Amino acid sequence: MKFSIERAALLKAVSQAQSVVERRNTIPILANVLIEAEGSDVSFRATDLDIEVVDKVGAQVERAGATTVSATLLHEIVRKLPDGALINLTADSAAGRMTVEAGRSNFSLATLPREDFPVMATSEYASNFSVAAPVLRRLFDKSKFAISTEETRYYLNGVYMHVSDADGGKVLRCVATDGHRLARIDAELPEGASDMPGVIVPRKTVGELRKLLDDDDMKIAVSVSETKVRFATPEITLTSKVIDGTFPDYTRVIPQGNTRKMEVDASDFAKAVDRVATVSSERSRAVKLQLDEDRLVLSVNAPDSGAAEEELVVAYGDERLEIGFNAKYLLEIASQVDRENAVFLFNSSGDPTLMREGNDMSAVYVVMPMRV
Amino acid sequence: MKFSIERAALLKAVSQAQSVVERRNTIPILANVLIEAEGSDVSFRATDLDIEVVDKVGAQVERAGATTVSATLLHEIVRKLPDGALINLTADSAAGRMTVEAGRSNFSLATLPREDFPVMATSEYASNFSVAAPVLRRLFDKSKFAISTEETRYYLNGVYMHVSDADGGKVLRCVATDGHRLARIDAELPEGASDMPGVIVPRKTVGELRKLLDDDDMKIAVSVSETKVRFATPEITLTSKVIDGTFPDYTRVIPQGNTRKMEVDASDFAKAVDRVATVSSERSRAVKLQLDEDRLVLSVNAPDSGAAEEELVVAYGDERLEIGFNAKYLLEIASQVDRENAVFLFNSSGDPTLMREGNDMSAVYVVMPMRV
Repeated sequence: MKFSIERAALLKAVSQAQSVVERRNTIPILANVLIEAEGSDVSFRATDLDIEVVDKVGAQVERAGATTVSATLLHEIVRKLPDGALINLTADSAAGRMTVEAGRSNFSLATLPREDFPVMATSEYASNFSVAAPVLRRLFDKSKFAISTEETRYYLNGVYMHVSDADGGKVLRCVATDGHRLARIDAELPEGASDMPGVIVPRKTVGELRKLLDDDDMKIAVSVSETKVRFATPEITLTSKVIDGTFPDYTRVIPQGNTRKMEVDASDFAKAVDRVATVSSERSRAVKLQLDEDRLVLSVNAPDSGAAEEELVVAYGDERLEIGFNAKYLLEIASQVDRENAVFLFNSSGDPTLMREGNDMSAVYVVMPMRV
Repeated sequence: MKFSIERAALLKAVSQAQSVVERRNTIPILANVLIEAEGSDVSFRATDLDIEVVDKVGAQVERAGATTVSATLLHEIVRKLPDGALINLTADSAAGRMTVEAGRSNFSLATLPREDFPVMATSEYASNFSVAAPVLRRLFDKSKFAISTEETRYYLNGVYMHVSDADGGKVLRCVATDGHRLARIDAELPEGASDMPGVIVPRKTVGELRKLLDDDDMKIAVSVSETKVRFATPEITLTSKVIDGTFPDYTRVIPQGNTRKMEVDASDFAKAVDRVATVSSERSRAVKLQLDEDRLVLSVNAPDSGAAEEELVVAYGDERLEIGFNAKYLLEIASQVDRENAVFLFNSSGDPTLMREGNDMSAVYVVMPMRV
């Protein structure tokens, strides 16, 4: 194998690869990136056995071939090479080395045979469709904060992407919850997606996917089977196993009868919650909300360190209400609001509260109260 | 105590205070800042029993008095208050609380009695002089990287500031070393400093002092005794115990007879060292330098991961030389060079090497070689 490539293109490909590679590997080849040169393309493939990412880059291929080298080491080297450098990569399989040359720098890296690299088996996908990058970005960005980190509830360690009924017909929906809060985000159902099986996309996959979604004009090809999901741009293909479990029936958690409505500037609200939460210890950051005629008083009482109180002008016309929440959960939910005021719908101080942006029903959040 | 103060001024004072306060305190009041209001000034005092910093700020004092509150908590609160806010602080000693009010925010913080706060005893200083901030900045910035972190050699855990003889007469000199490398930085002797006792300024004090030195036009009043050192601006006074030990005779370490001279662009050199060091494991990052007629080859050989080599054009006219160094030490020393080329003076591959900027003898570095 022998080819030359622009530093910027190589850096992008190996960045993607080294982020999929796990820091600690008991299987040495999983620390490597598989480099395959053929025709006028070089592909860089990395895997942790659950996720595989392949980045195909144009290059001057002099001799086709393939090898594997440490993804982090190659990434570090390319990162430190000067901007604009042309980099030559040459594999010598007899010596078990790959050389990296740029200007007067010369590196010789240990390789492992390409045959040992675990390439993910190709699958049949039940459903193939295309979604604009900003649509996927919104679905996952607004839901991922609610993914559970509890490993015992592994079926909550991802975003449940599925087709659902909504008021305006069928939608593509992403739901995440950790039992304390829930996010439910809808988008228009893409053509060809109606038969898609519901899948739980793991947290790490959601993170890797995010890197493919920065370009507003990009169309993402999505393929879904019962066991796998694939997201692809013309250059990058991200394939991931999905979580083998059943996502709980979240619809029961979303309150339908909450009628006490409070409307508040989301940014002012978040800042006030953040301030009053300062006095409390990290563990049980409970914030109390006292609602009365167009007036919200946020307060925290931490006997050891002190107390804090802040008043906000809100739109609220219902009867007096006192309710407590975990400050972190309130903050994270309020920070999802980007266009309009935050609308909170309460029932009683013991019931889950619903939050949305203005009257937009395509992004709905639920948060459980705390006793204060 | 009751006063009102601009957020920016309060934030600056409590930032300084909370950085001196240790994160974990067994003595509760050491976590607090002592706030004293009198006349038209408020002073904020924090200590870890070795360092004391006092920041005096103008404020609208309505009622003189004093109290102590958690430095980190007050800092967090002030940081989160909106820019430009006017903040009212009121101590109620009967209730053991201090209130912080700004706009519609209201905090009530637990206090501890001012009497319990350990104010550092005032001292007689043997020497008082004044130094421009940029001069002190250079003395400490260029030496502090060489401070030892080994607690057993506590007398190396700081910068040795003293008066010394140099070619042009007496100088104010800062020296730091960890036994592997050494930095010796000279400045013109300030008026009134000739009788100054040599003191070892602890690492943490060097860090706190740095915050006083950003303003190029600032004059710093320096006071030195056998046991303490004090640095003061009109607003801030930093007092610190010095390390109670004898700094070793560093002059013996500085090679006098090194004649093999290499001159190299410091930035190119540092980048090349950084690149070749990539292939080596973290622990023993040894870089080999091979010198020959105007040519330097840097190389690293790490059997497990690979090898790296890079060639640099240098000015060198002496006989062939091979010498090894710890990559981190070489990098840190090369990054001290800011104006001119780095000049290295070698003797043999087993002897310490000297580095300076061009022909400037006021900043000299020594680094021990490593067997490669």
